[in-house]
Parts: sequence; structure tokens; C-alpha cells
Amino acid sequence: MLTLSLIGIGCGDPGQLTRAAVEAINAADLILIPRKGTAKSDLADLRRTICADVVGSGKTVIAEFDLPVRDAGEADYRKGVDDWHDAVAATWSQAIANHFGGEGKVALLIWGDPSLYDSSLRIARRLDPLPKIEVVPGITSIQALCAAHALPLNDIGEPFLVTTGRRLREGGWPQGVDTVVVMLDGGTAFQSLDPLGIHIYWGAYLGMPDQIIMSGVLAEVGPRIVAQRQEARERHGWIMDSYILKRRR
Amino acid sequence: MLTLSLIGIGCGDPGQLTRAAVEAINAADLILIPRKGTAKSDLADLRRTICADVVGSGKTVIAEFDLPVRDAGEADYRKGVDDWHDAVAATWSQAIANHFGGEGKVALLIWGDPSLYDSSLRIARRLDPLPKIEVVPGITSIQALCAAHALPLNDIGEPFLVTTGRRLREGGWPQGVDTVVVMLDGGTAFQSLDPLGIHIYWGAYLGMPDQIIMSGVLAEVGPRIVAQRQEARERHGWIMDSYILKRRR
Repeated sequence: MLTLSLIGIGCGDPGQLTRAAVEAINAADLILIPRKGTAKSDLADLRRTICADVVGSGKTVIAEFDLPVRDAGEADYRKGVDDWHDAVAATWSQAIANHFGGEGKVALLIWGDPSLYDSSLRIARRLDPLPKIEVVPGITSIQALCAAHALPLNDIGEPFLVTTGRRLREGGWPQGVDTVVVMLDGGTAFQSLDPLGIHIYWGAYLGMPDQIIMSGVLAEVGPRIVAQRQEARERHGWIMDSYILKRRR
Repeated sequence: MLTLSLIGIGCGDPGQLTRAAVEAINAADLILIPRKGTAKSDLADLRRTICADVVGSGKTVIAEFDLPVRDAGEADYRKGVDDWHDAVAATWSQAIANHFGGEGKVALLIWGDPSLYDSSLRIARRLDPLPKIEVVPGITSIQALCAAHALPLNDIGEPFLVTTGRRLREGGWPQGVDTVVVMLDGGTAFQSLDPLGIHIYWGAYLGMPDQIIMSGVLAEVGPRIVAQRQEARERHGWIMDSYILKRRR
């Protein structure tokens, strides 16, 4: 029987590793590290750093594999994702077969938390035979963002919505909430909103040495975030950022 | 200058402690542990266990204090909370004055994450003089719930809402989302919904040795959760639970 351990490692700061994550990493017979191409090589580097830092025994094999690239040209977004999940599952199976007898523990180190905007749980369920799946939660970029701003995410007794840049751009301010967390925004969807009464709490490279945070009245700070984001993206070659919008009525 | 460190300790499993939390606990000169009365004494016990397990040096003082009780009889909910925050801030100040010269680091161990449905950040801002506030994120019960069910919280590219039992009971199924996380439900607000097409993923005492999880079609599993919850609450004297509802269309 194969156990697949999906281990949340937090979003950049090795200090975000939990004791359970360290234990699960050390319990693995095989750790698979995806190579995602040069743009995100910092992320593979972080996984390597964590392994080098945490893996105590000589028995754990660390194996890298090339992650398939999603076909961004596929007009049907869901079909594109679906095909990509199949391709990734096939790659995992191959990597497991290459390095492993088929009994024991395989681990993947998941950016943030395996349950939040991550595909690993869905991909794991496509493996044949189906492994036993174990999830170890990790600190998410939402939590790192709140911590960096010392910001209570929800108002007292109030709800909040977690959504994507695409949704915000297409749907405007969501109904029924005054707090919106925006993830997976490849751009700056907050620019599509009427900024009146909105505060923004933004962060990029959260938890990493290059962390940048900015906050304030959206009308004033928004344009500065756009410029800062552009500049940082050019300097690093990539950017990962997220933000929280709060509407004051 | 006083630094107040709000340290997320996760929701029951000492394995959820991050390395940054362990470091922050050990960097504290004084750790304040609230006593909340007998019903929630298990929670104070967990804090004591974590301190005993983690604090390495003899210089850290661990001091318990009695947490004021919120006046549940106050008709205005917000005013009740506001007064309670003032009272807690006064208690913190007193405890800090009793044990401490006023320079250095005071830490509070926060259940879950200081930014999620927790008052500590708001109370900290009422302290006079205002301390430097540091936040260390911790694993929340939402994450422990998802991990226990090996459940991706969001559907692909879709939003989710985090709300309270009270809101769900008063407002019904929220608009624009198919995934709802329900926190702070003193009861079983899911019973107020038409269960058609809804799945529930429920958990109590998440991360603790007595963790219970149940999931399935709400119409079938809902009544069993109500009975299980009642039974567990009587046995323990208290219950902390949360759940995720997913609507399949």
C-alpha cells in the first residue's frame, strides 16, 4: 500500500513549517520535487532548502521531476485544467515507479496549504491504484499577509469571501461581504473597482526575504501598488502576491 | 518599549506549532495564559502543555490570569464585545504590570491564528502605551478540518465564504458561492437550510485526541451530526466544532 503525504510547507519562510510537517517529511521514503521551469525556480529552491534542512535520515530519497505545463491555449478553462491534472498524475506515477517499489510513503511539499487553491488533492485522486492520502496543513499566504499587516481578517462576527482576481474583475464587489481576500490574481484586478471607501492590504513574496507589503486607501495606494508590482516582477522574473480589500461603510 | 507577540498555536495538536511559533515562545520574557473557567480548562491545559514542552530557558516567566467574562446579557452585541475588549485589555495591562518591568517581550498563545475570529489584535490596540505588535500565524480549525477530510476547500478557480452560524441562520445560503465555511456556530445552524444538494464536512475537537469528523449528504448526515454533537458536548462539558457546506448544482 502506498501512502501519499501532501505536506503544507507554508509560503516561503521555513519558519512556517509545523512540527507535524517536519515529522511527515522525515517519515517519507521518497520526496518528489517538481521542477517548474526557470521563472519559478526560487520555489523549487525553497523545497530543496527545506529538505536539506529538515531531512534527518539517509533513507529518504529526494527526486526531482519535470512538471507538465498547462495548455494555456485551451479555450475551455476547465478542460485545460482537467487535462493538466491527468498529465501531472501520470508524471507522479512515473516518478514514483522510477524510484520506488510501491509500498511506503511518498511525500510532496505543497506551497501554502494543500486544501487552498492547490491541485494536489485532486491529482492524487487520479492515481491508479489510489494511494492512502494524508494531508498536513501549512500556513497560507492569506495568513502571512494578515500577520505582516497585523490585520484581523474578519470584522467582529462578520463573514469574508475568498475569491480570485478573475472573479473580482468579472463580477465586481461581491454581495453580502465587506471583506474580500483576492488570490490567484495574475494582475491587479482591484483596479476594476470603484475605489471609494475601500482599503487595500497587499503583499508580495510573503514570508520570503524579499517580502513587500503596502496598505492604505485604495484610491491612493492602488496606483503605487501597480507600479511597485511591475517593478518587482521585472526584477525577480516572477511575482506571487495577494491582497485583502475592506469596505468601510 | 514593550513588544506583544500574538502567537498562533494551531487548534489543539501541538504538532501544528510552527518553528516560528516555537522561536517566538522562547523569545518571550513573559507568557500570559488566560484562565477561562472550568468548561474550557482543556484549552488552558493545552497552553500549559505547549509551554512545558517548548520553553527552553529559565528566563521565561509563565503567568496565568483570569479572563473577564463577556456580559451575554448586554442587548447590544457590539457594545457587549466592545466593553469586554476594554475589560480584557485592562486585565492584560494589570498582568503585565504585575510581572514585568515594561521593557521586553510579552507573548500570548492564540488558539488557531490571531487573524481569524480572534479578538487579541483588537484588544492589543487598546493597550496604553501601545506596544509593538508581532503576529505569528498558526494553523486554523478550517485547515485542520480540510486536512482531516482530505478536502480541497475551494472548487477550481471558485470562491468560498467564511461566515458564522448566526449569519447562516439569519440569512440562509449566501449568494454567489457554492462553498461555505461556518465558524462560531454555538449550535447547528445547518439545520435551518433546505438540505437539497448540500454536502457537509463536519469536525469537532479538531487536532485533539478526541477529534470527531463526519461527512456526507446533509439530509442524511445532518441529523446524525446533531445527535453526535449533543452526546460529545455532554461528555466533554464543552464543544468546539466547525463545518464546510458544499452545494452541488
